[in-house]
Amino acid sequence: MHINLFIFGCGHHRAAWRHPASAVERMGDISYFESLAQIAEQGKLDAVFFADGHSAENLSDGPRWFLEPLTALAAMSRATQHIGLISTVSSTFYTPFHAARMVASLDHISGGRMGWNVVTSMFDSEARNHGYPSMPDHDWRYARAEEFITTVLALWDSWGDDALRCDRQGVYVAPEAVRSIKHQGEHFLVDGPLTVPRPPQGHPVLFQAGASDQGRDLAARRAEAIYAVAYDLGAAQAYYRDIKRRVREAGRSEPVPIMPGLVTYVASTESEARAKQRELDELLPSQDALRQLGMYIGQDCQDWELDAPVPPLPPLEAFTGPKGRYATVLRIIETEQPTLRGLLGRLAAGGGHCTMVGTPRTIADEMERWFRNEGADGFNLMPPSLPGGIEDFIEYVIPELQDLGLFRKAYEATTLRGHLGLQRPPRQP
Amino acid sequence: MHINLFIFGCGHHRAAWRHPASAVERMGDISYFESLAQIAEQGKLDAVFFADGHSAENLSDGPRWFLEPLTALAAMSRATQHIGLISTVSSTFYTPFHAARMVASLDHISGGRMGWNVVTSMFDSEARNHGYPSMPDHDWRYARAEEFITTVLALWDSWGDDALRCDRQGVYVAPEAVRSIKHQGEHFLVDGPLTVPRPPQGHPVLFQAGASDQGRDLAARRAEAIYAVAYDLGAAQAYYRDIKRRVREAGRSEPVPIMPGLVTYVASTESEARAKQRELDELLPSQDALRQLGMYIGQDCQDWELDAPVPPLPPLEAFTGPKGRYATVLRIIETEQPTLRGLLGRLAAGGGHCTMVGTPRTIADEMERWFRNEGADGFNLMPPSLPGGIEDFIEYVIPELQDLGLFRKAYEATTLRGHLGLQRPPRQP
Repeated sequence: MHINLFIFGCGHHRAAWRHPASAVERMGDISYFESLAQIAEQGKLDAVFFADGHSAENLSDGPRWFLEPLTALAAMSRATQHIGLISTVSSTFYTPFHAARMVASLDHISGGRMGWNVVTSMFDSEARNHGYPSMPDHDWRYARAEEFITTVLALWDSWGDDALRCDRQGVYVAPEAVRSIKHQGEHFLVDGPLTVPRPPQGHPVLFQAGASDQGRDLAARRAEAIYAVAYDLGAAQAYYRDIKRRVREAGRSEPVPIMPGLVTYVASTESEARAKQRELDELLPSQDALRQLGMYIGQDCQDWELDAPVPPLPPLEAFTGPKGRYATVLRIIETEQPTLRGLLGRLAAGGGHCTMVGTPRTIADEMERWFRNEGADGFNLMPPSLPGGIEDFIEYVIPELQDLGLFRKAYEATTLRGHLGLQRPPRQP
Repeated sequence: MHINLFIFGCGHHRAAWRHPASAVERMGDISYFESLAQIAEQGKLDAVFFADGHSAENLSDGPRWFLEPLTALAAMSRATQHIGLISTVSSTFYTPFHAARMVASLDHISGGRMGWNVVTSMFDSEARNHGYPSMPDHDWRYARAEEFITTVLALWDSWGDDALRCDRQGVYVAPEAVRSIKHQGEHFLVDGPLTVPRPPQGHPVLFQAGASDQGRDLAARRAEAIYAVAYDLGAAQAYYRDIKRRVREAGRSEPVPIMPGLVTYVASTESEARAKQRELDELLPSQDALRQLGMYIGQDCQDWELDAPVPPLPPLEAFTGPKGRYATVLRIIETEQPTLRGLLGRLAAGGGHCTMVGTPRTIADEMERWFRNEGADGFNLMPPSLPGGIEDFIEYVIPELQDLGLFRKAYEATTLRGHLGLQRPPRQP
């Protein structure tokens, strides 16, 4: 089983920063992020991961973006020795030469521990920071993403693995081992070669999170590991089987591990775990949360009773607004019968992602169930609060997973590729 | 006096990597660069500095680019505590949002120690890695650089210094303290605000190295510190006075320290210092160097005697090729009467830059002479070999400069801006 820590501010619960023990004052302090990576490494996790966004929105609501991920990960790589380091990279906002150069540089700095999660980005506010009057459409972004990946890989392969000779009486680099790429496509003109020799991993590991049909196809064709959103095992299995089928159809034989997001509240008893969850939920400013819920469900709910069950809502077919979020709301109500405050809390902490609340053993068992039944090859942990949520997970859940024989007790590899069981790609001919 | 270490591969002498003691095998090893920054910090230097290039050229000739500077400096910031960290940033290849975000992030990570050296880049081979069919012309690049700087500064000022409230019962950020910039110019469309709060230094320190008339003007109007090329004190004074005049004419009252490049060979006697220089010069593959000299001077010199004086050359007026390099060759011959091998060595180690060869005391005295006579406010050290060249300088020359009362014995400030005696800029209204 592969386990990844998704680092996000003070945690994935939108109110986590309001907790007295939160590190909200340290969002610009790299030592906070270094310590999170160190905690994850103590737990033998495969990697830490940063999402990324290119606009500042809803600022009063809590920390979101602060340190830029590539620069933060460079520092974090020097505070750790084994764990993988994954940065989101937008193919819409980066150019291939910059991305290839920085990620390759980080792969050298970290000794082969880098991954890049290619996204196409979404928001007009982001596009308008990067010269686009509005966000280019989905098709254009996916075509660019495809060409972007192709170009970056070609740049990483512009150097042979044995190009560096360092022969003091002869040459520093064997000229015949370095080549141009002369890429000239719809979106990019890049001659190459890269300024950075081939990365230790050959190619730093390519992650994606394909959700749309086009996204799934791209992921199936190109991704080496996949982040997913799955509310429950059924949804996870549907996604898992679909992607694995697409991977096979693309003629690929690599494992392509799939890692759904996972929010956990863990304590020694179920009721203590529920209490932890409630403690965060109660920090949520209810008027803001109710206003947001009102937008999701298309009705005013400001006067609803917070600690009573959620009133019945119309079925999905009857709803005329955006269906995805509405469906999530309905599913949470149907499967968990939460109070209104509980629903707001669930939506505030990775709403569409799987949430497990319980003892170390029940959570480990549930993770095993997903793992054994084509739901997941691993998980992308989204602790509701940091560092508490990941400390708990590593102290209590990891040993259970190790006892079940599901998770490593020590690092067996030195690279992210090694942790994930992926081969080092040979240079493209 | 301000002193900066210009880090470059195995040193600024093109043959330095061929020396048995060179670290040529460690060009991708961040701990090598961390140790250089630590050595410079032991010497209380103001900063370390990386040049940058965006194409891989003349690879067999020795190390040039390898690790990308921003990612390397992130790691180096965590191995040091006081020293400034300066990266070259190309305004032709970067966009303002990426540059502002990364440099701001690094300023937070380093606790206010970042500088950025804005260049417009030069080579077609670089342009063709970034989507341009060839390098855009000089005027276009300078217009873009100007707009680039304006936009980056506006993004850094998009957050007020007191924007972060971290009020657990209230807001994370005071919304009125963060603003859009709505930049829409000839070259860029950037709405802002930045995703990163205002950097600790307000603005990370802006370096430039203006040489052309347009470059000098831009430097005089915008730079907070300037790198220069000066072969001797006369040339340094001419440049210094011209820039200081332009700075005054731009209505600026800041100090704008000017730091010419400086190559030093230091030993306890002058003849030992000469021997150190000769040792590197003798590592230069003479056929390659002669071929290059032949191009500079427009005649075949492959059969000239290496250890004899350079034969007389026609005067500058009679030369029809590129005059700059030819003038440098003539000046070296005129002022130093070198052997042919000596000339090749001088051209191989920062040819146009000042070179001082001597004892710690003679070098310190000469540096003082430049400093006291409007030649320099400091120096950008270009050690011919690394780490040896900077170790020597710090062990032997720095104490002399300290004894002369010219250089700090301990860090008195915590930021690069503080080291350079520059004020923290208030937020633009």
